[in-house]
Amino acid sequence: MERFTYQRRIEYSDTDMGGIVHFSRFFVFMETAEHEFLRALGTSIDRTVDGVRISWPRASATCDFKSPARFGDVLHIHVRIVRRGVKSLTYGFEFWREDTLLAQGKTTSVCCAMHPDRSPEPIEIPDWFAHAIASDA
Amino acid sequence: MERFTYQRRIEYSDTDMGGIVHFSRFFVFMETAEHEFLRALGTSIDRTVDGVRISWPRASATCDFKSPARFGDVLHIHVRIVRRGVKSLTYGFEFWREDTLLAQGKTTSVCCAMHPDRSPEPIEIPDWFAHAIASDA
Amino acid sequence: MERFTYQRRIEYSDTDMGGIVHFSRFFVFMETAEHEFLRALGTSIDRTVDGVRISWPRASATCDFKSPARFGDVLHIHVRIVRRGVKSLTYGFEFWREDTLLAQGKTTSVCCAMHPDRSPEPIEIPDWFAHAIASDA
Amino acid sequence: MERFTYQRRIEYSDTDMGGIVHFSRFFVFMETAEHEFLRALGTSIDRTVDGVRISWPRASATCDFKSPARFGDVLHIHVRIVRRGVKSLTYGFEFWREDTLLAQGKTTSVCCAMHPDRSPEPIEIPDWFAHAIASDA
Repeated sequence: MERFTYQRRIEYSDTDMGGIVHFSRFFVFMETAEHEFLRALGTSIDRTVDGVRISWPRASATCDFKSPARFGDVLHIHVRIVRRGVKSLTYGFEFWREDTLLAQGKTTSVCCAMHPDRSPEPIEIPDWFAHAIASDA
Repeated sequence: MERFTYQRRIEYSDTDMGGIVHFSRFFVFMETAEHEFLRALGTSIDRTVDGVRISWPRASATCDFKSPARFGDVLHIHVRIVRRGVKSLTYGFEFWREDTLLAQGKTTSVCCAMHPDRSPEPIEIPDWFAHAIASDA
Repeated sequence: MERFTYQRRIEYSDTDMGGIVHFSRFFVFMETAEHEFLRALGTSIDRTVDGVRISWPRASATCDFKSPARFGDVLHIHVRIVRRGVKSLTYGFEFWREDTLLAQGKTTSVCCAMHPDRSPEPIEIPDWFAHAIASDA
Repeated sequence: MERFTYQRRIEYSDTDMGGIVHFSRFFVFMETAEHEFLRALGTSIDRTVDGVRISWPRASATCDFKSPARFGDVLHIHVRIVRRGVKSLTYGFEFWREDTLLAQGKTTSVCCAMHPDRSPEPIEIPDWFAHAIASDA
């Protein structure tokens, strides 16, 4: 997959009293764009394998905001994998409204086994997941 | 002010199906920590001066996550100003649960005049605001 | 319009540590379903008329939850107007996942002129809005 | 306990472009008020008993909005139990800003055993929980 684009319309609850989209929402949009990207590749972050829930907690997230988004705007969010580690993945995102670049962001997630009442345990990215994203060369 | 600490208990709605606090919530916590810091200094980001609403849209926000937070945890969030520009401010944050550093973040905000249906207009930080934070040397 | 259906996929950030969609999200979904319904009718809740911003604060909102929704579920949300007052509208909603009714809700909104630093002022529903929804008999 | 009051300051991210608190936030506030009420009684909704996680999904939630809340407002949220069933509890809430009643709400929650990939299973309210709230006569 050369590039994946996730489209989303700004909702009323995304806005704040400044009249624009609250900056924290861009991080939610990045996450959903990532999940839609994986869905398009036929996989998901949500799997229970041998009774262990796999999850991808964030190691870091960053966003630069260039221009505000407003209620009703349609955002085109470009997603790509910018770094593939043994246990982690870094995704890059661009937020466009027509010809205007609104924001650029990055998130790094660590593949983890989730145990109740313990810290997430980083594990190697499972083969079934690696294969799915291998098609995105 | 040497350092300001904002305390907050994790709520149920802060969590996600991974059983931990959703990463986007840390950005909300940073913002509220910033506002409580300003409140302690006797000022606020929310002012209408000469009929113009002043606001502080984000230019950038970043966070590194070290250890997850869970429902009921009490977070101590340290706030300080790390860079003071003519029109912008950069805040640094540390999230602690007792002796454990959970996350570190930064946000940069631009002082803007907000006009309906126009982009936020960057302006020099007003004197009343600069004076308030000057006490935080 | 006999009935309008808004479709939405559950996102990771909609969930909580119980593994299901947080109940407060259903109220956000109702609002967005209402706005998509109005968009389909060619109108919007967001209008500034003669320099006055019109908005529709909620007078009440209620929801009965029958069965939980989970990450990845596709919800079909049916919307209809159940009561048309002079200054208010009541919408009814049903949330379906395939053949399962997940929830039923209602919201009542009051048409208001929004003034800075004053309470919202209830006004009669403007003609341009009434005409748009009149097609939904 | 005659009555419990939970105090909370409105945050920037609670607001929307209408300049007031988004109505969905009141439901989050009710939930946190309920949890703080239980904390004051020495218990919690979050328990794993014999390896089974107990949770309290909502059966219904309703709120009537009288007057808007704004950024920086301090809300006093009164909580009480209005109905005690075998498997469910109904809480009543009032939202006050000084002498102004802003909103009134109710939520009904069902005590459930949570199993992965299955619907929540309603169970009788456990003794340890019933005893804790019995002090609230």
